Amino acid sequence: MSGTGEFDLIARYFTRPARRSPLGVGDDCALLAPAAGMQLAVSTDMLVEGRHFLSTVDPARLGHKALAVNLSDLAACGARPLAFTLALSLPAVDAAWLEGFSRGLFALADAHGCELVGGDTTRGPLNLCITVFGEVPAGAALLRSGARAGDDVWVSGTLGDARLALEVFRGTLALPADSFELARGRMEQPTPRVALGMALRGIATAAVDISDGLVGDLGHILKASGVGARLDADAAAKLLATGDSTGLDIDLRRLCALAGGDDYELAFTAPPAARAAVEQAGRASATPVTRIGAIEAEAGLRLVDAQGAAVTQRFASFDHFA
Amino acid sequence: MSGTGEFDLIARYFTRPARRSPLGVGDDCALLAPAAGMQLAVSTDMLVEGRHFLSTVDPARLGHKALAVNLSDLAACGARPLAFTLALSLPAVDAAWLEGFSRGLFALADAHGCELVGGDTTRGPLNLCITVFGEVPAGAALLRSGARAGDDVWVSGTLGDARLALEVFRGTLALPADSFELARGRMEQPTPRVALGMALRGIATAAVDISDGLVGDLGHILKASGVGARLDADAAAKLLATGDSTGLDIDLRRLCALAGGDDYELAFTAPPAARAAVEQAGRASATPVTRIGAIEAEAGLRLVDAQGAAVTQRFASFDHFA
Repeated sequence: MSGTGEFDLIARYFTRPARRSPLGVGDDCALLAPAAGMQLAVSTDMLVEGRHFLSTVDPARLGHKALAVNLSDLAACGARPLAFTLALSLPAVDAAWLEGFSRGLFALADAHGCELVGGDTTRGPLNLCITVFGEVPAGAALLRSGARAGDDVWVSGTLGDARLALEVFRGTLALPADSFELARGRMEQPTPRVALGMALRGIATAAVDISDGLVGDLGHILKASGVGARLDADAAAKLLATGDSTGLDIDLRRLCALAGGDDYELAFTAPPAARAAVEQAGRASATPVTRIGAIEAEAGLRLVDAQGAAVTQRFASFDHFA
Repeated sequence: MSGTGEFDLIARYFTRPARRSPLGVGDDCALLAPAAGMQLAVSTDMLVEGRHFLSTVDPARLGHKALAVNLSDLAACGARPLAFTLALSLPAVDAAWLEGFSRGLFALADAHGCELVGGDTTRGPLNLCITVFGEVPAGAALLRSGARAGDDVWVSGTLGDARLALEVFRGTLALPADSFELARGRMEQPTPRVALGMALRGIATAAVDISDGLVGDLGHILKASGVGARLDADAAAKLLATGDSTGLDIDLRRLCALAGGDDYELAFTAPPAARAAVEQAGRASATPVTRIGAIEAEAGLRLVDAQGAAVTQRFASFDHFA
């Protein structure tokens, strides 16, 4: 479904020599052949202006983010990225925007050996839809359904800074300039934890990527696994990359860490006997990992503070329809 | 990337028991395993309101069309449909719309044994992005690049009626009621030629699906194959399903058939020695096939009328950025 103008667009900014796919962008279909014994992991995310990114975002950062949120889903399955398709609705053909967007997109794609194999472009309100393909040995994918009572709950990297940056853009809070730049970087250029996800194959019992906030996304593991959990809200609040530099009170830091959204870290579970293995997976992938709770047989999520007392603050999951 | 409300939406209208995929909708990734010796054919199409469909379209017909245009890409490769993902941006949660859309979508999906394995929903201007997966024996995919001088040029089914219907909606022409309903059906519920595409494996030398008009899409074959072609414009004009019933002049009927857009038929090439095999493939797939031209060594497309005289009328490809 590509007319002449569209086709020129694709050719100019998005066509590169095909590597992995027998066909590059331009035939009706791309052809992929997973290696013997491998399953193909597939995920789709759609990004809409004003909901997933601000209209003022640097296009190179947007190109990074559009692919990063998809790679994050592969990471949560422990899959190695192979390829992706890009469908793009644009209000107008803007060469500077396309140059920046494709530069940011391909920089991240190349860093992960992930090849653009097909796509579609059309005119319309700005919308980016990427479908990403990875491979994982048959039976080795990390799922949401494997958490068991007694497992530890871990998270990768940092939490909550993207939400802080969003609130600054919304004008609901102010941050020191250095803290804002750090938080903005987390919002606009999240780091998909691909290497960690692959290193956790055979170690983690369940995993999910944190796109809507830790509480909501961990909830998917709890529901799929038929278990509950206890989480240390203060340990989570310590995971803001901006740390104490923001001068924000503990309630707000807990809120951002637990329900901020847009983190693209991994939340995962593993038995206590695997603690050394989890820490080794973190080192091997150069990704910080922090233990912040435990899976329990009783359904529901119980938040406690550093002293073990119940936290009564309410945390809603970030909802793209809210 | 699914929050609570989104998740409820997916669960209500789009979750069905998983069949082919080891995982259904709801984990971070779907897992697919093509059979041994098979390649996976992948294609993505994005549909935007006002460009690919009218805001007044019946949602069940839109659900059909959104998948049909993607299945049409698989057909052009000769691939058997396996699965698809759906990303949906909706301005609001409208239960009646979702019920109709999912009903039309799944009716076509079920008819082709094509399973929904993942997706994303968000709030935003109406946008539908489907990525479809099929399988084809390694090396057997129909490509755009195999046409050779001396090959016949064939098209499946009917051409041009979708454009007639669009022009009625635009108010630029009037049709008798029966003709309009027929044309509207071709516009709103195109028939992906999946069975024909599979039957043409090993017979057709090149194939493309006609989404932007025969002239433009055949042009992709000519360019990829390094050849030209001669087309009988009057034979093409006879392929309108509405036939003589519209009372329209020959120039307009040629225009719609050759450059109307939205046909989702196959244009393909095959050597003259394969004529009986092509006709048998058409019968076996219950799909009309019509020979309307020939591939020539000289680059470019030459249109002739029924008497073999050059047609000087200009035909632009339908361009989604026009």
